[in-house]
Amino acid sequence: MIVVFVRLFLLLCVGSIGATEVLLPSWNEGATKNCIIDFLSAVTDKNNPDYVAPEERVAVFDQDGTLWVEQPIPPEFLFTFDRIRSLAPLHPEWQTVEPYKSILARDTTSIIRNMTSEMIAKIMAITHSGMTTEVFGQIVNEWLDHAVDPRFKKHYTELVYKPMIEVVDLLKKNEFSVYIVSGGSQDFIRVYSEKVYRVPPENVIGTTGKTRYEYIDGQPVLMKLPEVLFIDNMKGKPESINLFIGRRPLAAFGNSTGDQQMLEWTQTGKGRRLELLVYHDDPIREYDYGPESKIGTFSEALMSEAVKKGWIVVSMKNDWKVIFP
Amino acid sequence: MIVVFVRLFLLLCVGSIGATEVLLPSWNEGATKNCIIDFLSAVTDKNNPDYVAPEERVAVFDQDGTLWVEQPIPPEFLFTFDRIRSLAPLHPEWQTVEPYKSILARDTTSIIRNMTSEMIAKIMAITHSGMTTEVFGQIVNEWLDHAVDPRFKKHYTELVYKPMIEVVDLLKKNEFSVYIVSGGSQDFIRVYSEKVYRVPPENVIGTTGKTRYEYIDGQPVLMKLPEVLFIDNMKGKPESINLFIGRRPLAAFGNSTGDQQMLEWTQTGKGRRLELLVYHDDPIREYDYGPESKIGTFSEALMSEAVKKGWIVVSMKNDWKVIFP
Repeated sequence: MIVVFVRLFLLLCVGSIGATEVLLPSWNEGATKNCIIDFLSAVTDKNNPDYVAPEERVAVFDQDGTLWVEQPIPPEFLFTFDRIRSLAPLHPEWQTVEPYKSILARDTTSIIRNMTSEMIAKIMAITHSGMTTEVFGQIVNEWLDHAVDPRFKKHYTELVYKPMIEVVDLLKKNEFSVYIVSGGSQDFIRVYSEKVYRVPPENVIGTTGKTRYEYIDGQPVLMKLPEVLFIDNMKGKPESINLFIGRRPLAAFGNSTGDQQMLEWTQTGKGRRLELLVYHDDPIREYDYGPESKIGTFSEALMSEAVKKGWIVVSMKNDWKVIFP
Repeated sequence: MIVVFVRLFLLLCVGSIGATEVLLPSWNEGATKNCIIDFLSAVTDKNNPDYVAPEERVAVFDQDGTLWVEQPIPPEFLFTFDRIRSLAPLHPEWQTVEPYKSILARDTTSIIRNMTSEMIAKIMAITHSGMTTEVFGQIVNEWLDHAVDPRFKKHYTELVYKPMIEVVDLLKKNEFSVYIVSGGSQDFIRVYSEKVYRVPPENVIGTTGKTRYEYIDGQPVLMKLPEVLFIDNMKGKPESINLFIGRRPLAAFGNSTGDQQMLEWTQTGKGRRLELLVYHDDPIREYDYGPESKIGTFSEALMSEAVKKGWIVVSMKNDWKVIFP
């Protein structure tokens, strides 16, 4: 299916790469790269009927599986499990209750098998609350400094996709406002987004817990509460884009069923738009998810939708020269 | 009290206005203007110990009573009352039930006397929902085009404070990100914020209702629901600043008790900050609220707090050459 699809785009995007500088150097030459550059050329050229003023140039990126590695378990889940282990001495009852029991036993297979979105929401709420926003930032920073991916032997902030970072940079160079719109926690991503993606904290939208303004020793603080304000996934993505940005994106980048509505919302705006899905088909350099993957699901239904609607599907294996910086 | 306070600032801000261009031309020369310019000179000068990098330069402005007229009733309340009148044929029961009865009878005295924040929240929810975000924008635009203030005989978008717009512009010129942080509805303010204040929709934070992503004739839309997501007033202001911006402001501008926590949160950050309250003491050119005003309350407690903490209190009468553009 992916081969047919790429051929289709070969016909549509014949490459208007007139620049002398090599754009998107980590992308192989071909239809996918041409489509991205064609789109950018069109919306930034004042003489093009698809021209869009800079203030309307909004691009949105999912994070997990789109900007950085999410297999076998998204980094924030691992952070959450480490937090559960740190908090365990205060909760002796966790030794016998799931999902805590499997987490404490580091039984990854059991964790993934039993994982539900309710369970994830619950343990996120428990581990991401009870401290000020400032202290939470310090906890995340310390974790990022120490945690290492067992397969790649690198910090998670090094396991970002170089070709996608190049797209972020190219969009910013072309006066786009680039936002991350993630099912992950806004407060978690904001800690490293500027450093890792060059996306400032105010441009990070994610699943969010409530805070409460209160005083410690007469000083105001924002305490993180174990209550969800909104879940930024599926339909929640266009809803949060409206809440935070108030403009419809011109371009949307995702990799899973959680991004479908965001791409759909982007595409149904007037004028030229760009929708792109990263397809994980590279077991040697990264992962080959397959349609049954519980993490970052790219279902057959999503592939049909992408083909039907003309969304670009990036083959990591064929389209990317390198994966990591 | 205000006189004593202004004298205090005369001593602190002795004016480092070295620019040849006249900055803030609608402000009278004096301590208040000097304080604003001193602050700006300090945080933008690389050789100053208070220098702040551009990406950290965040300024937040309340809207009603800070950027535009809110007396005798804030424009959005008037919009809401007009919406109630438009919807009344569908609700015959409103003829005998408060607050609808007073609104339908245009009995302003009774409306203000009986107004509670719960009542306002309820009628806002009813009148600001049941349509798509797009249709709501059109309704607001039409209303703004037609509604005229009975005293000043002008559209509400013309009743903005010229001296404050100059501050917005000067901050933006100095690479500040300027946000509106209002108790009013985010979706309402976003309709005109760019045109009127040169603040883009993504920089408007306000009280917010939930939306639901759904389909009309196969096309995705965001329906506005009659449910509040968060109320952006008092403690809600620092909470929403954290939610939307994720940075602590360097400068905060308000005019009432609803802004107290926002100024406090701004001030307790590290390094130099600016906090300013507009004090309505000009019955000839605008309004003299007095400490008992139910709209835009500037209580004696707030004045004590401002004096104690060194917040700038702007006398509209003495500090501003003109009020409106």
